[in-house]
Amino acid sequence: MPKTNKLKIINDPIYGFISIPNSLIFDIIEHPYFQRLRRVTQMGLSNLVYPGANHTRFHHAIGCMHLMQKAVRVLRMKNVEISDDEANALYIAILLHDIGHGAFSHALEHSIVNGITHEEISLKFMKALNEEFDGKLTLAIQIFEGKYDRAFLYQLISSQLDIDRLDYLKRDSFFTGVAEGNISSDRLIAMMNVVNEELVIEQKGIYSVEKFIIARRLMYWQVYLHKTGLVAENVLVNILKRAKELAMKNVELPASTSLKYFLYTPITKENFSKKTLQIFSELDDYDILSAIKEWKNHEDLVLSTLARMIIDRNLLKVEIQEEPFTNKYIGKKCMKLQSLLNIDEKEAEYFVFSDKIEHQAYNTNKPIKIYSKKGKLKDIAKASDQLNLKALTKPVVKYFLCYPKKIM
Amino acid sequence: MPKTNKLKIINDPIYGFISIPNSLIFDIIEHPYFQRLRRVTQMGLSNLVYPGANHTRFHHAIGCMHLMQKAVRVLRMKNVEISDDEANALYIAILLHDIGHGAFSHALEHSIVNGITHEEISLKFMKALNEEFDGKLTLAIQIFEGKYDRAFLYQLISSQLDIDRLDYLKRDSFFTGVAEGNISSDRLIAMMNVVNEELVIEQKGIYSVEKFIIARRLMYWQVYLHKTGLVAENVLVNILKRAKELAMKNVELPASTSLKYFLYTPITKENFSKKTLQIFSELDDYDILSAIKEWKNHEDLVLSTLARMIIDRNLLKVEIQEEPFTNKYIGKKCMKLQSLLNIDEKEAEYFVFSDKIEHQAYNTNKPIKIYSKKGKLKDIAKASDQLNLKALTKPVVKYFLCYPKKIM
Amino acid sequence: MPKTNKLKIINDPIYGFISIPNSLIFDIIEHPYFQRLRRVTQMGLSNLVYPGANHTRFHHAIGCMHLMQKAVRVLRMKNVEISDDEANALYIAILLHDIGHGAFSHALEHSIVNGITHEEISLKFMKALNEEFDGKLTLAIQIFEGKYDRAFLYQLISSQLDIDRLDYLKRDSFFTGVAEGNISSDRLIAMMNVVNEELVIEQKGIYSVEKFIIARRLMYWQVYLHKTGLVAENVLVNILKRAKELAMKNVELPASTSLKYFLYTPITKENFSKKTLQIFSELDDYDILSAIKEWKNHEDLVLSTLARMIIDRNLLKVEIQEEPFTNKYIGKKCMKLQSLLNIDEKEAEYFVFSDKIEHQAYNTNKPIKIYSKKGKLKDIAKASDQLNLKALTKPVVKYFLCYPKKIM
Amino acid sequence: MPKTNKLKIINDPIYGFISIPNSLIFDIIEHPYFQRLRRVTQMGLSNLVYPGANHTRFHHAIGCMHLMQKAVRVLRMKNVEISDDEANALYIAILLHDIGHGAFSHALEHSIVNGITHEEISLKFMKALNEEFDGKLTLAIQIFEGKYDRAFLYQLISSQLDIDRLDYLKRDSFFTGVAEGNISSDRLIAMMNVVNEELVIEQKGIYSVEKFIIARRLMYWQVYLHKTGLVAENVLVNILKRAKELAMKNVELPASTSLKYFLYTPITKENFSKKTLQIFSELDDYDILSAIKEWKNHEDLVLSTLARMIIDRNLLKVEIQEEPFTNKYIGKKCMKLQSLLNIDEKEAEYFVFSDKIEHQAYNTNKPIKIYSKKGKLKDIAKASDQLNLKALTKPVVKYFLCYPKKIM
Repeated sequence: MPKTNKLKIINDPIYGFISIPNSLIFDIIEHPYFQRLRRVTQMGLSNLVYPGANHTRFHHAIGCMHLMQKAVRVLRMKNVEISDDEANALYIAILLHDIGHGAFSHALEHSIVNGITHEEISLKFMKALNEEFDGKLTLAIQIFEGKYDRAFLYQLISSQLDIDRLDYLKRDSFFTGVAEGNISSDRLIAMMNVVNEELVIEQKGIYSVEKFIIARRLMYWQVYLHKTGLVAENVLVNILKRAKELAMKNVELPASTSLKYFLYTPITKENFSKKTLQIFSELDDYDILSAIKEWKNHEDLVLSTLARMIIDRNLLKVEIQEEPFTNKYIGKKCMKLQSLLNIDEKEAEYFVFSDKIEHQAYNTNKPIKIYSKKGKLKDIAKASDQLNLKALTKPVVKYFLCYPKKIM
Repeated sequence: MPKTNKLKIINDPIYGFISIPNSLIFDIIEHPYFQRLRRVTQMGLSNLVYPGANHTRFHHAIGCMHLMQKAVRVLRMKNVEISDDEANALYIAILLHDIGHGAFSHALEHSIVNGITHEEISLKFMKALNEEFDGKLTLAIQIFEGKYDRAFLYQLISSQLDIDRLDYLKRDSFFTGVAEGNISSDRLIAMMNVVNEELVIEQKGIYSVEKFIIARRLMYWQVYLHKTGLVAENVLVNILKRAKELAMKNVELPASTSLKYFLYTPITKENFSKKTLQIFSELDDYDILSAIKEWKNHEDLVLSTLARMIIDRNLLKVEIQEEPFTNKYIGKKCMKLQSLLNIDEKEAEYFVFSDKIEHQAYNTNKPIKIYSKKGKLKDIAKASDQLNLKALTKPVVKYFLCYPKKIM
Repeated sequence: MPKTNKLKIINDPIYGFISIPNSLIFDIIEHPYFQRLRRVTQMGLSNLVYPGANHTRFHHAIGCMHLMQKAVRVLRMKNVEISDDEANALYIAILLHDIGHGAFSHALEHSIVNGITHEEISLKFMKALNEEFDGKLTLAIQIFEGKYDRAFLYQLISSQLDIDRLDYLKRDSFFTGVAEGNISSDRLIAMMNVVNEELVIEQKGIYSVEKFIIARRLMYWQVYLHKTGLVAENVLVNILKRAKELAMKNVELPASTSLKYFLYTPITKENFSKKTLQIFSELDDYDILSAIKEWKNHEDLVLSTLARMIIDRNLLKVEIQEEPFTNKYIGKKCMKLQSLLNIDEKEAEYFVFSDKIEHQAYNTNKPIKIYSKKGKLKDIAKASDQLNLKALTKPVVKYFLCYPKKIM
Repeated sequence: MPKTNKLKIINDPIYGFISIPNSLIFDIIEHPYFQRLRRVTQMGLSNLVYPGANHTRFHHAIGCMHLMQKAVRVLRMKNVEISDDEANALYIAILLHDIGHGAFSHALEHSIVNGITHEEISLKFMKALNEEFDGKLTLAIQIFEGKYDRAFLYQLISSQLDIDRLDYLKRDSFFTGVAEGNISSDRLIAMMNVVNEELVIEQKGIYSVEKFIIARRLMYWQVYLHKTGLVAENVLVNILKRAKELAMKNVELPASTSLKYFLYTPITKENFSKKTLQIFSELDDYDILSAIKEWKNHEDLVLSTLARMIIDRNLLKVEIQEEPFTNKYIGKKCMKLQSLLNIDEKEAEYFVFSDKIEHQAYNTNKPIKIYSKKGKLKDIAKASDQLNLKALTKPVVKYFLCYPKKIM
């Protein structure tokens, strides 16, 4: 009688079927720490602009694991030796590389959990899981931390052409419907190779790499930094900052147990204990958004006004330009609002604020290396015959100013 | 200087660009009642099985409006007269046809908001909006209620081959990645026509209709009634029922303001006031799921145990068969659990329960009519040359039994 | 220095990248016998209806090889033992299963090469290649002929759910743009298993199989037997028949060397020599269509009139019905044409002709077997709970009558 | 009784359904001149590299017409006035813009029909059709020739962002499976507008235009100038040149009537008569390829050797570099071949030859204009904030050298 596998296949609208390679990975996926990612959207509030963009960090992580399996297959076919333990460690490391992301992806880091980065929290999760799984994640952690001596394994996890990017660009393009951001992860993986333990791209993949860089740039400006999404993200951060501010003054705020913990407790890298990690593992988009829904009716005018903006999708106006906004211009808007709402300057700054956004399309410090037919390695920025990739190494900076529509 | 439109284009990964036909519809979409649909998933907890299935009722409604525009264009090209007012009413009616759906789509209707159907609530919303928009929705409401004298307009909104189905089958198939459920909405719309004010399908569309019926049937059994999703849905309903039960006993339950209202207030069709509607309009998936997250730690064993099942995706076991389960078999499971957890029978029934699921692939009462080249109208079940569609008119019934894994 | 593979990757718009598993298969693909398939369209003259349908037998064969690799991978994961030699033989057998197809796929078989089937010619090609490749195709030939003792290997090549169908339905659906014919080859393969050396489908694949049968049926009636394609195919056959008739009377016909051979030489199964095979291997769509272009201006009225119909896509009219056309009705059309063109009855029958088309959606003689969870095997026609697949076992027959538009 | 349209819908795997706007256009499509395009592949011999790339000029022209309908709809929605006559002229002009392309697209122009460009032949076809259709193509011809006073109409037909490119890049990307070349024609069209009768792109479309330019560049180097395709194209041209050379010496060559005409008659722009046009209209890929198949066995060694290379896909070797090859290097190869095959230098040059390929990604002479929110027009090369588009205005030149493998 044939053995039919237990559920080890996951449907993905992008890749078709994704198979889970073994039972250790199956168990990691089943763990509540990982299941939390089902409740964290990959793109934060971008769904206010692109209504299809509701995909989660869970799905992205699973997708990464799938692409990593492809990469291992391709490299082995090219006679790059990768042991089964190393392969497995790669799958685990990429699966968990973002597990430390807070609710709404980046918003938390800029408001209430800001003494510690999401990478550091990811590492804490990995270590906690390693204990539970009797040390079976040790190699994955080494690779993730860049402490394993085969560089390309780390580069598959984290570099300018890592598996993370290959999945998220494709996935975000797919679910937003911005087809122009679509990249050929398959082709890019097919062009991978390893020279002196470094991850390289074969020469004939050069146009694909160029295209990848341009597609990523397009996704940044058209999607990730889309002005409506940008406003929403900043309003969200301001809501959380305001809530934290009120909490520090012992104002009562309806919120879930986990969210209350993070609002009413000062968090630093030092005091981020096991208990903190456990509570963090119970905090997701649902805590945040349901709190905001309650706060719509809070007596604090700042908090409730900002909250209503998100829930009713009635956001601030935004101006974007290449020069910083003058203090004078900002100050004028601020004062107008102060007198209109009868609030003080500090409160007005929750509604009138300016900041910059920047994006560097390509970074020459850790170059993508092209492997020529003649056996030489070149930075893509130099190997590319014409497309002036060097120009793309200069970060583009833009400045934005948000303020309420009624003081336009 | 050319006039460039305000944001009137929405990206859809399925259809590309969707344009909003006019400013009335733009304003309806902007209304908080409609914006709430952004926070109600189309497929409830199916994302526990199909991780891509996070699309919302908002997106579905917008997609329907898009297909409706196509249908109007096709019918007009075939010289079916549709006035601009009628077209507009169609867009509004289809946009709002599901606005009364509660959080997690169907779960609420079977637990805490069960004296009134979602269709009735949809109608209440439409009437409330009609007041706000000075009667501009009157014709849409007439069509939605089936009170307008041109039958095909109603049939486009609600029939066995309505625009609703054309969008949701395509959309659910797309986001789950179950490509086999994909239907050709374009082709089906291209085959539509109107005879004696009835919506018909031209003869050459017969295979497409067959295929549509089979695809829908496949989606039911493979996706909508997928056993894991089925368990999750039932556990969710039981959580809400238990919560309501506790609330009626005045047990304190952490919950959002809106959810508390529906837990602690008996709702009937009669007392579903304007105030109730307003509170309903603030209730969405986030209220439910964040409450469940809190209830994981509630002192009531039944509530907390069920809640953990959903959050950690560690669900009940399910058996499915074609015959009802015997009371004896169920009773035995129940008693085993009672003694294991030291709970009474009524409590045990939250974990051990049986019910039936059924699906009728095709209903001859309101047939899909095929219009032959010779000018005759036939029920598709008769027009189809061979595929025994009559067999599909018999509802398929299956029985399921759920119980905790530990008493397997 | 890393070894980068020679061209062993083929781009496929459907599957992405297809890799060629080894150098023997690479060499078979490079062989002129196989390269000929680049010049034989998969769907004959269907591109007169579906302009995207220009894909070739070459591409289909390569696609089959790709799916076969997937099937082998899936079965091995389920612990079905398949040796490397067997796997390789499967790839070769599926690659060459259609190599005996003549120009325009089926047209030749019904006109000038009609003493021998395309399967018999495929076998001749395989044997010729086996000689060239020192016996390395022996096992592939055994499997292809059904003479190897593991039945499932043959069933993967030829059965109601073989790899051939899994590719061509998907491919034809893709290139015609008839999305409704799309099937999930991936899912069907994922559901394959082997019991007692028989190919079976696991129970949860039952809806996918149903869907596959319905999709195939739809493709037959909507695409393969599309009335315009049907007329074109029949006109093509008539052109070749007329040409052969004229050739037998020693009328001179411009044609390529290879085509002349088949026109002026009577071909039987017995005299289909090595030389005949060699000439056959040089005959493709280009010989046929370029001859027809010349024949547009031939002095034989029948030949030139038919030829113009194809080239200018100005075809005969066709009527289709469920009953045979009466001789009286056909005769009347025929006589009208005779007097109009001043031709005799036999000549008129090249323009006025009736025949039947039939399609059996499912054949119970060699059933698709479903493997239930309880370990039983059932014919899908019985396992399917409701969809009356039995009804689909009855062949559907339709009758058509073609005649020139001017005698309508 | 409803009127159902005659066949006016064409299936396209890319766009879904394409509808034919009116009966004049229907009749033009039916004309043998246009039907010939069914037998001319869009991408010449690229199918030797990308086996899916068998799409035809017919399909491309139809696709263009479809996109043009979209463009007209978008512009009208933005209040750009386009009369029905102008719209119709646009459809006709784009439908016929490439009708003068010879067999295998570009090969003929560089060998046997080289006194006249394909654009000139297109114009001849349009004028001939205009006579047949009683002057109804007059406006289309004016626009096509750039003689109509509304510049944007011409720019839709021919510019750096014309409808032609929007279709062929998308189509070629689709059928080759090189997904990275995919562009969002829909988005680009949605961003079109008209200022002072000039076609412009709105500012928010800037990233899409960049992406379009990069995608086109990628398609050139990865697909259109793919080295195997390049060799095949050059061998094809050499075959035709050799044939013409032999024909001029009155050597007998098997060929179709039309091809013979072009081989044995010197063609110049001056003597390209109506009769020549008629014969040209009967010359397509089938004439060329079937002749080449015959020439495989021609007694002329050069002709037969080259012919076999194409048919058996056993091509010359190619080297590509950024500097010209030295005469010395080429001469050495040449001499080696001369002595090997015992042929003279001129004959050897059919096998050993060098040339350059070049591509200019963007041309500032006729810039793509970006229309800023503040109402200014800028060349995209200047409007693009960072991507150094100026770098892309410099043509990239590469040199290639072909020679037989045996003299490597």
